[in-house]
Amino acid sequence: MRLTFAGIMHIPMVEPGDDLTGLILKGIADSGEVIEDDDVLVVAQKIVSKAEGRYLDLHTVTPSAEALELAERVDKDPRKVQAILDESNEIVRARPGVLIVEHRLGFVHANAGIDQSNIPPGEDDPDDMCLLLPVDPDSSAARLRDEILARTGRQVGVIINDSLGRSWRIGTLGLAIGVAGFTALEDYIGGSDIFGRELQVTQVAAADEIAAGASLVMGQTTEKTPAVLVRGYQPREPEEASQRGVRPLLRPKEMDLFR
Amino acid sequence: MRLTFAGIMHIPMVEPGDDLTGLILKGIADSGEVIEDDDVLVVAQKIVSKAEGRYLDLHTVTPSAEALELAERVDKDPRKVQAILDESNEIVRARPGVLIVEHRLGFVHANAGIDQSNIPPGEDDPDDMCLLLPVDPDSSAARLRDEILARTGRQVGVIINDSLGRSWRIGTLGLAIGVAGFTALEDYIGGSDIFGRELQVTQVAAADEIAAGASLVMGQTTEKTPAVLVRGYQPREPEEASQRGVRPLLRPKEMDLFR
Repeated sequence: MRLTFAGIMHIPMVEPGDDLTGLILKGIADSGEVIEDDDVLVVAQKIVSKAEGRYLDLHTVTPSAEALELAERVDKDPRKVQAILDESNEIVRARPGVLIVEHRLGFVHANAGIDQSNIPPGEDDPDDMCLLLPVDPDSSAARLRDEILARTGRQVGVIINDSLGRSWRIGTLGLAIGVAGFTALEDYIGGSDIFGRELQVTQVAAADEIAAGASLVMGQTTEKTPAVLVRGYQPREPEEASQRGVRPLLRPKEMDLFR
Repeated sequence: MRLTFAGIMHIPMVEPGDDLTGLILKGIADSGEVIEDDDVLVVAQKIVSKAEGRYLDLHTVTPSAEALELAERVDKDPRKVQAILDESNEIVRARPGVLIVEHRLGFVHANAGIDQSNIPPGEDDPDDMCLLLPVDPDSSAARLRDEILARTGRQVGVIINDSLGRSWRIGTLGLAIGVAGFTALEDYIGGSDIFGRELQVTQVAAADEIAAGASLVMGQTTEKTPAVLVRGYQPREPEEASQRGVRPLLRPKEMDLFR
């Protein structure tokens, strides 16, 4: 098995309302690549959010009493803390310099994934502009997949990735936050090992593994390489609707020993 | 940037004392690949442990009182619990069916990474045989790198990977447990984004990202594809000795909010 991760460059600065599918397909062509059936397209969260206009200028945010108190505790801008709370189900950890939440989509994510790098300046203060996660990254991924099929006739898997921190280990890792046409959690239950015994380790986070590899290609300044075309993995949509999208990767809070 | 992950097959069942470098180099040739300068070789923990003879037959293990009590609590074989304790610094979480520890090497790892699939049967009971992590995976990686240089003249990075569970998310992910000739934690502090502001997200777990991508190629039955040759990433040994190996990826317990 051979996987190729081809960085897609030549995608211009994405603006709200842009035809993201068109920009990516043009980027693929301009990068000298050709999209094929069974490719997996990994797209950086940032350009999906930008196309969806998920900007928030902090000068429009008025912090609540809760946000003011929490901002004091974590030593962050109260308006940003308010924006984080608005994007979250609950606080997971709050310490000076650290605010880790359960995002409303279920991801445990520092600052609810709100990003302030590589985006245009705010109106009052350049540093005020924020970029939120897409409203529904699974739907964003499905839309990209459907539009690629409609325009090119190619059936591909689509993963939207983002850089997330983790417990226990230092450094961010690219992980999947939106999935379409791809089995995020590969289930090996019932298989047998090469000695014929039942396998013990059973579930592999395939979408996260491919998202991580793509993240390495994207590098830090994702603006330059905000998409990666992966060839050699045969993606397939799970038959059961409950297994589609990114949700199978999210451990329900009540099953999580580390909250 | 284009990364290619080529699965290395045709590596025979590895036995204790085998010349692992030789087996991998032969596997590379038999897979139709040629090793080049600046390649990164990702090797599955399992074949490193096998070559190092890291087998433990549970019929040789006598559980302590602590292991007996803990085994009751986690509903596991007391002899295996003893083996896990012997490989660990401390228990992180213990629940029925779950025993997560800090491995003596610093990894937070379920069952201390002890593996019972795809290994030969135990003497008394087929299911008694266990495979432990390598004694010092960074040294194992460095040895592979040095031997590859000596035998082929090629300067490569080497990563030993293993499948680890994680908090918050379901499914295992391939991560680095041993690193040589590769900067495990890429540091972007001081860089600037495309608008000229200082970057906020600063450290990327590059070795984990490449280990994850390789894990996807290895698939579940790693015996079939226990090594992956990655081309297109320019690995480099960190200049500072303290930044070498896998240790920069491990969050010290006192800095970890999720223990």
